[in-house]
Amino acid sequence: MSADRLSSVSKEVKPESVSLYPLGTAAAPEQELLCIFGTGDFGRSLGQRLLHSGYRVVYGSRRPHSCGPLPQGAQAMSHEAAAQLASLVFLCIHREHYDFLETLTPQLQGKVLVDVSNNPKKNLYPEANAECLQRLIPGAHVVKAFNTLSAWALQNGPSDANRQVYLCGNGAEAKQAVAEVATKLGFAALDKGSLSAAKELEDFPLQLFPEWRMPLYVAVGLTALIFVYVVIRDVVYAFVEQGKDNSFRIMVSLANKVFPIVSLIMLSLCYLPGVIAGFIQLYRGTKYRRFPDWLDRWMLCRKQLGLIALGFAFLHMVYTLIIPIRYVTGAPYSFKSIRENRTSVFDTTTAWRTDSYYSIGILGFSLFLLLGITSLPSVSNALSWREFSFIQSKLGYLTVFFCTLHTYLYGWSGFLRPYKWYMPPAYMLSLVLPSVLIVLKLLLLLPCVDRSLTRIRQGWERTDMQDGSEKPLLT
Amino acid sequence: MSADRLSSVSKEVKPESVSLYPLGTAAAPEQELLCIFGTGDFGRSLGQRLLHSGYRVVYGSRRPHSCGPLPQGAQAMSHEAAAQLASLVFLCIHREHYDFLETLTPQLQGKVLVDVSNNPKKNLYPEANAECLQRLIPGAHVVKAFNTLSAWALQNGPSDANRQVYLCGNGAEAKQAVAEVATKLGFAALDKGSLSAAKELEDFPLQLFPEWRMPLYVAVGLTALIFVYVVIRDVVYAFVEQGKDNSFRIMVSLANKVFPIVSLIMLSLCYLPGVIAGFIQLYRGTKYRRFPDWLDRWMLCRKQLGLIALGFAFLHMVYTLIIPIRYVTGAPYSFKSIRENRTSVFDTTTAWRTDSYYSIGILGFSLFLLLGITSLPSVSNALSWREFSFIQSKLGYLTVFFCTLHTYLYGWSGFLRPYKWYMPPAYMLSLVLPSVLIVLKLLLLLPCVDRSLTRIRQGWERTDMQDGSEKPLLT
Amino acid sequence: MSADRLSSVSKEVKPESVSLYPLGTAAAPEQELLCIFGTGDFGRSLGQRLLHSGYRVVYGSRRPHSCGPLPQGAQAMSHEAAAQLASLVFLCIHREHYDFLETLTPQLQGKVLVDVSNNPKKNLYPEANAECLQRLIPGAHVVKAFNTLSAWALQNGPSDANRQVYLCGNGAEAKQAVAEVATKLGFAALDKGSLSAAKELEDFPLQLFPEWRMPLYVAVGLTALIFVYVVIRDVVYAFVEQGKDNSFRIMVSLANKVFPIVSLIMLSLCYLPGVIAGFIQLYRGTKYRRFPDWLDRWMLCRKQLGLIALGFAFLHMVYTLIIPIRYVTGAPYSFKSIRENRTSVFDTTTAWRTDSYYSIGILGFSLFLLLGITSLPSVSNALSWREFSFIQSKLGYLTVFFCTLHTYLYGWSGFLRPYKWYMPPAYMLSLVLPSVLIVLKLLLLLPCVDRSLTRIRQGWERTDMQDGSEKPLLT
Repeated sequence: MSADRLSSVSKEVKPESVSLYPLGTAAAPEQELLCIFGTGDFGRSLGQRLLHSGYRVVYGSRRPHSCGPLPQGAQAMSHEAAAQLASLVFLCIHREHYDFLETLTPQLQGKVLVDVSNNPKKNLYPEANAECLQRLIPGAHVVKAFNTLSAWALQNGPSDANRQVYLCGNGAEAKQAVAEVATKLGFAALDKGSLSAAKELEDFPLQLFPEWRMPLYVAVGLTALIFVYVVIRDVVYAFVEQGKDNSFRIMVSLANKVFPIVSLIMLSLCYLPGVIAGFIQLYRGTKYRRFPDWLDRWMLCRKQLGLIALGFAFLHMVYTLIIPIRYVTGAPYSFKSIRENRTSVFDTTTAWRTDSYYSIGILGFSLFLLLGITSLPSVSNALSWREFSFIQSKLGYLTVFFCTLHTYLYGWSGFLRPYKWYMPPAYMLSLVLPSVLIVLKLLLLLPCVDRSLTRIRQGWERTDMQDGSEKPLLT
Repeated sequence: MSADRLSSVSKEVKPESVSLYPLGTAAAPEQELLCIFGTGDFGRSLGQRLLHSGYRVVYGSRRPHSCGPLPQGAQAMSHEAAAQLASLVFLCIHREHYDFLETLTPQLQGKVLVDVSNNPKKNLYPEANAECLQRLIPGAHVVKAFNTLSAWALQNGPSDANRQVYLCGNGAEAKQAVAEVATKLGFAALDKGSLSAAKELEDFPLQLFPEWRMPLYVAVGLTALIFVYVVIRDVVYAFVEQGKDNSFRIMVSLANKVFPIVSLIMLSLCYLPGVIAGFIQLYRGTKYRRFPDWLDRWMLCRKQLGLIALGFAFLHMVYTLIIPIRYVTGAPYSFKSIRENRTSVFDTTTAWRTDSYYSIGILGFSLFLLLGITSLPSVSNALSWREFSFIQSKLGYLTVFFCTLHTYLYGWSGFLRPYKWYMPPAYMLSLVLPSVLIVLKLLLLLPCVDRSLTRIRQGWERTDMQDGSEKPLLT
Repeated sequence: MSADRLSSVSKEVKPESVSLYPLGTAAAPEQELLCIFGTGDFGRSLGQRLLHSGYRVVYGSRRPHSCGPLPQGAQAMSHEAAAQLASLVFLCIHREHYDFLETLTPQLQGKVLVDVSNNPKKNLYPEANAECLQRLIPGAHVVKAFNTLSAWALQNGPSDANRQVYLCGNGAEAKQAVAEVATKLGFAALDKGSLSAAKELEDFPLQLFPEWRMPLYVAVGLTALIFVYVVIRDVVYAFVEQGKDNSFRIMVSLANKVFPIVSLIMLSLCYLPGVIAGFIQLYRGTKYRRFPDWLDRWMLCRKQLGLIALGFAFLHMVYTLIIPIRYVTGAPYSFKSIRENRTSVFDTTTAWRTDSYYSIGILGFSLFLLLGITSLPSVSNALSWREFSFIQSKLGYLTVFFCTLHTYLYGWSGFLRPYKWYMPPAYMLSLVLPSVLIVLKLLLLLPCVDRSLTRIRQGWERTDMQDGSEKPLLT
């Protein structure tokens, strides 16, 4: 797609704009000239953006006269000539082609070389591309930068997540020069240290949802576990004890048992670390000591845990809603009430219970959906800190409470019935975690506990600690 | 959470970056030194950001050698020493600790003091924090700023809603200096006037959905009113007149009567002010006079009214979809057709009516959902003004029309039946407002009326006004 | 709405702020003075923003003493006086009022005139507003700019889609001056060439979803076609052959046949161009030649095709879920099983088939919804390029596969039944395109083909081409 996108950009730039940034007029003597090696997608997009931001651009190419469409206003020349004109050279070349740069050592002496390259895979080379380049041309100042941006981001300008340009390198002045270019292009430059951080920067664009990994593993693990459990309890049991083949129930009925259970457990996992952190702070009497690593990591993936739980809740809702379709469309089901020829003994208590069960479930799901919507980046950005924390904690715990109550109402008197093969129904197991969570949260909400915790979170420290440290003045 | 977030930031900054911004090198003589009092979350995040943006930072602390982890590249020293080095001091201290600043009066003389503090509650103190500070150290130039940002926003850089830094103070030059720092950090500085505006700024982060308050009150009020009405009509009536206990119907059936009614009324309330404004402009013959205050405030919460209405419409849809589940899952319901042993007299007119009723309802809800999606900040930002107004007005009125038609089809011949206790069914009451809205809108769409209104909105003024003012040239 | 919005802005600015930017103090000698002609919504919002960004502003007005509320800190004077003070004049006037500017020719000589005007309709005038202005005052440097912004965007500052200011004009220096103002206001200036591009810029804000046009035409065309087909097959056939009036089925049953078919076809149309592009690149052996125009245009509207398909899928889901309601609420339907007094012959194969059919459909729809959510601007901005392409291609093809499988399971043994009037059921027709797509995609995934394509996309070119061009070094 980038190829056709680029051509559309090229079309937009009217030929007249050439005259705006001529290579040597007196009208704009302050416009800096930058050099780009490489006329691929990225090189062309970068040149386009640089030209738009008021720089002059010259491309270095092996075939300066047949290197394809360049942004209007840019010149192409040999690598040697181009390198000599500018003090800052962008290398938009694949690492495999770095070798030829050695021949340019004299021209690149003392220049700032910006390495924008990425690799197709992690750990393809033992050394970072930028470090390899520095070794190749020791006289140049190599700065790793811009590699986290796509050609697309360069063409369309910085947006929310594409605003930051990470850079690293050994020379402070070289980094400053690159940071200035980034700032002028509308990006925010973030210094990540010396060139030894290049490896880390080069791994950035290769990451695939790193913060989703753990939550997804948890979700898959839980799903598998509970699926096996309900298959044993519902299908295997019926087959062994009653000789019935219930296997078809896997597709809808059992799936609809697994989804709500995973959803409820993951929702609890999303709020549990916050409660645990509260108890740790209470126990330690200070907020100034770091949490254990496992809790840190757990807290950082709460949003992902919650969103996956929302996905499962959505599946549960849709699977529940299709239940009646299977009865009315001539499917192989028929109504229990009809099949069993039950007389319609109407029981108000049962009616209250089932209707409450449905109603609480819907309200819980709606609140859950609201939490999901407010975690969309553009919505949460529009909220003040107080509003965001109100929604995510107050409404969040209300959601947990509704969903737990929904499950208790589903169980109702079922908690007392004898178990098949000593295995309690799966939904009972799913209630353990949310029940614990709710009890712990209620403890934290007790007035005396709440007061202590609030003080600690405002910077107060318990003074009965053995090191005799005084109450901190500044928080 | 901010504590662990901060530490992760600190980890990212490699020790090498220290050498980039040394406190006294000749390489970067232009880097300004700023001072921060307070090493809490906010102080550390602010220092981090300042360092990233090319400033040098020194912390003032009571315990310079044990004040916990500071951003790499920053120094900590005594308050006196730190204040003397910089001409601009950020105070990241709670108001309770301001008193000690009096001892620093000589060092702070003539300095710009940036008060970033917030209070945990509104009206905790009679005087704004910044004003109290100015009174304490009259020789300093106090500027209130940055208090609307969270430590989180400082660390992650400005985003959509966190882009603006409000500032106020009595000295123009002091404000200019703070505005420059804010701009360099990537924020947009917005001057709010003299220090007497500090109170207003300090109340900003304490606001909890101010623009949602009125619509929520309306929603709660309407819901309560209609709920009581349908309870009387359906439950109390059945109990008094027929001795039947219908109370269980509250959870699903009655809820599902209340939700669509509230939704339809609030949807009308969302579009009514626009129509009223049109009539006022037509009557006045100009768009240059302000609307009455109540209309102004009403128009400002249209988006919120619409979104709450969408929430109720969503609940209505889900509550409707679960109706059949209660019949097929062995619940205490049975089919009317079965119970009453009705013979299946098929009636095409009724079939057309019920199917149209469902179909129109779904289409109305889908349009409504589309309106909701386009009001997400990131989506509405991506639309041109003309596109946004096309969706919100054209599609909006189509939604109103569909939802009203849906309700009329629901009523059908029911409008003519005798009422229980002289109380018409609730849905009939809900039709009043949308019907009025549609009639008014149709009046505005009459070619002659539409032409006048368009001219007025383009700046034309009726000339038969008594003050004899001429047609304005510039609009 | 803009009128009341503006007044609220004016209220926010405290009177004290006047003293901050006085018209002639020595304290701020570097603040540039700009002139605005026109005191309408746009002029006032622009002035407000300019004042906030540190400029001084003077308004030119015919009635300087009665021109309504101006932003605090701005002065109003006659056009002549205002024009003389500033070197840059913003014209916030409708084109019809340009004529009076001729009288100001001496004052405007050599000045930069920024034309911000828009027209209510396309092609209202043969000449662009800015070109007309340049003809009127040949001695001024006319720059077209800021016309794509709304008064609202000016007041609230740049946001995602409102960040770019397009400008064009004949003078490079004049454009540079306007670009600097835009940058200082927080916008990104994008040069679009000489004044002959003004027409294009003036058409920008008048566009109504240009990129949605084609996909919408396709959707409407397909819907009409398939609707006619199913009406003939289901309603007309039943009427002609059996004399039954099935017309009521149009509202729900037939709609629910049309929606999924259109959705599936459009989903295939969304992924087909990517596959075709792959085959073209394989055939040509290079990625450096442009795709044919029709493919270019097709690829640019893939997102819109997909989102419309999602809308139809949503309608299909809701229409499916309401099916059972019509049976249980005393509607003119009754259960096939009851009507036909069928004995409940339970068939495990059929149970597996129907349950799989529902389950696969729900999973397909959920994946589809996930694709839709990730295409929200704020979500896709938060993804890295690799994450975005993973979701849109890997999960996208999985969605196509699930939805196609869902349709095959729906058909089941129906493929072999004789057709009414030689017309196969519509869902069979809908399977052609997705089946072709899946086969083509599988071909591209064959290891040998995949390897070639990956190499081509990394910049490799086939060397057996007749022009003997060598393998390019730089990509």
